[in-house]
Amino acid sequence: MRIVALAGGIGGARFLRGLLAAVGPQDEITVIGNTGDDIHLYGLKVCPDLDTVMYTLGGGIHEEQGWGRADETWSIKAEMKEYGIGPEWFGLGDRDFATHLVRSQMLTAGYTLSQVTEALCVRWKPGVRLLPMSDDRVETHVRITDEQGSRAIHFQEYWVKLHAAVDAEAIIPIGADTAKPAPGVLEALAGADVILFPPSNPVVSIGTILAVPGIREAVAAAPAPVVGLSPIIGGAPVRGMADKVLAAVGVEATAEAVALHYGNRTALRSSSGNGGGGRQEGLLDGWLVDTADEGAVAAVEAAGIACRAVPLLMTDVEATAEMARAALSLAEQVRK
Amino acid sequence: MRIVALAGGIGGARFLRGLLAAVGPQDEITVIGNTGDDIHLYGLKVCPDLDTVMYTLGGGIHEEQGWGRADETWSIKAEMKEYGIGPEWFGLGDRDFATHLVRSQMLTAGYTLSQVTEALCVRWKPGVRLLPMSDDRVETHVRITDEQGSRAIHFQEYWVKLHAAVDAEAIIPIGADTAKPAPGVLEALAGADVILFPPSNPVVSIGTILAVPGIREAVAAAPAPVVGLSPIIGGAPVRGMADKVLAAVGVEATAEAVALHYGNRTALRSSSGNGGGGRQEGLLDGWLVDTADEGAVAAVEAAGIACRAVPLLMTDVEATAEMARAALSLAEQVRK
Repeated sequence: MRIVALAGGIGGARFLRGLLAAVGPQDEITVIGNTGDDIHLYGLKVCPDLDTVMYTLGGGIHEEQGWGRADETWSIKAEMKEYGIGPEWFGLGDRDFATHLVRSQMLTAGYTLSQVTEALCVRWKPGVRLLPMSDDRVETHVRITDEQGSRAIHFQEYWVKLHAAVDAEAIIPIGADTAKPAPGVLEALAGADVILFPPSNPVVSIGTILAVPGIREAVAAAPAPVVGLSPIIGGAPVRGMADKVLAAVGVEATAEAVALHYGNRTALRSSSGNGGGGRQEGLLDGWLVDTADEGAVAAVEAAGIACRAVPLLMTDVEATAEMARAALSLAEQVRK
Repeated sequence: MRIVALAGGIGGARFLRGLLAAVGPQDEITVIGNTGDDIHLYGLKVCPDLDTVMYTLGGGIHEEQGWGRADETWSIKAEMKEYGIGPEWFGLGDRDFATHLVRSQMLTAGYTLSQVTEALCVRWKPGVRLLPMSDDRVETHVRITDEQGSRAIHFQEYWVKLHAAVDAEAIIPIGADTAKPAPGVLEALAGADVILFPPSNPVVSIGTILAVPGIREAVAAAPAPVVGLSPIIGGAPVRGMADKVLAAVGVEATAEAVALHYGNRTALRSSSGNGGGGRQEGLLDGWLVDTADEGAVAAVEAAGIACRAVPLLMTDVEATAEMARAALSLAEQVRK
């Protein structure tokens, strides 16, 4: 079976680890990774979401933290402080720096981000084919208003420095409108047997991937069933601050509202997300909500999306594998 | 007193520490640092000699090693090995990497190496004005013949990887012929009260500095006395493998031969070193040899260079300060 998953960082990576545990050796998983979180720091290209997937599936992740490397050292960060060079709020450990050095050197030499990612995965052997959503530079910015006035700041500054404590007024995936899907992305979607939306952030992770022209259309047009898992449980994000960016696109932080935001695949829906303007095709055939949100099932089904309530807390790999099995099972049920 | 010293890496840096201990707060020391050892690694600009001076005088050096940082960690090196990316033979620790990251980012932003060095020194406060010999790229290569045939390799590969175990056939400071002295270099030499050649490598350190068009001429024309300290004691380099590169320019590894290689400042001498071709002006007014080389004093003086034998082992800062005092004292004796 050929499974394609769109993925952000921590939530996506943890789901993928469960998915890998749920499938067999004959199954092929292609991951389309969000690169809208990418940031240039110290002259290096940092791809937090791609790296989180790579480190998590490759056994190098800092388990408790969910991002960055296990057994990390922090010498460079300490030195940068001595040099008076920021940003202090972004945590790049020494081991992590090595990845960014290799990536940046390859990019400068003329390799594409796809090629670099493939090269890095030679070491990490994540067990999936990891594709960036695009080889073109896309960086998500967030419009806020604070004592400095109204301005757009890099997503990482909003998320990591400000902890999303200020309201997000708009999410702007800069560069997305002219970005092209990376080689293999559209082909993977067209050839998939199942397409999954892990419980990643619907706006700044999966939403940004879908904002690359051609990707949303390819998901909508794919012959495979599309099943998503709610990142919202009981009216709050399981982790992260998804509610803040959902509010920016006018979506309530409920399992039901996120499903309707993605939309029923059989109908056009009015656009409220990234890439905005006009009506867009809906994307979902199926949707999993947590058992805490059993009450949402009827409303989601009423909107034409098959919905099941199952435990959605990724407490360990086996619990996550069970979520993946439920998603694959729902995909079979909705397969035309 | 305005003192100008030409300096390479470890030997030069240790001498400068002694010099700083020997002079008073009213004295100004300008160091013209060798950049011919510079190398680009992992997309970063590494300046080993400038950094050794900066770290040594700024209190950050690894004392026993003589290069690199105290309390260093080696996470990036371990990661690079996992990624299969070399060179494994070059030791860049994590703290050291921070310096190269800052430098490279500033260079990419358009600052000159002089400006970057000044910025780095804001942190390190070396107590001297540290100038690179040039803002232009100069990289010393060494011609060797081995089982792979005759070829020129980067000086660092010759020195660090091969440990100078193969004969050096020629020393080629690539880029030196078109390099310009960095801002302030010629002015410092013209305005100096004393010019010192520390016991640095006469070929690949001081020789490379002198190979930048204008610098040798400025030393020769300077009103200040020029005094050097022999890096050769008892027919062998105190540290390093200076004998190998001296052989490449046809100079014996003796305290006397090195003095004659620099030449008597009052006469032209036939060129045998970097920048070759024709006759060049001699540079030395005075020369210090170690007490073990007392026998060389007469021959050096016969060549028109004032010479004294004093202990030249830099065993500690006070012993080194005593060497510096001897050099300054000899400068006073030869001052016209």
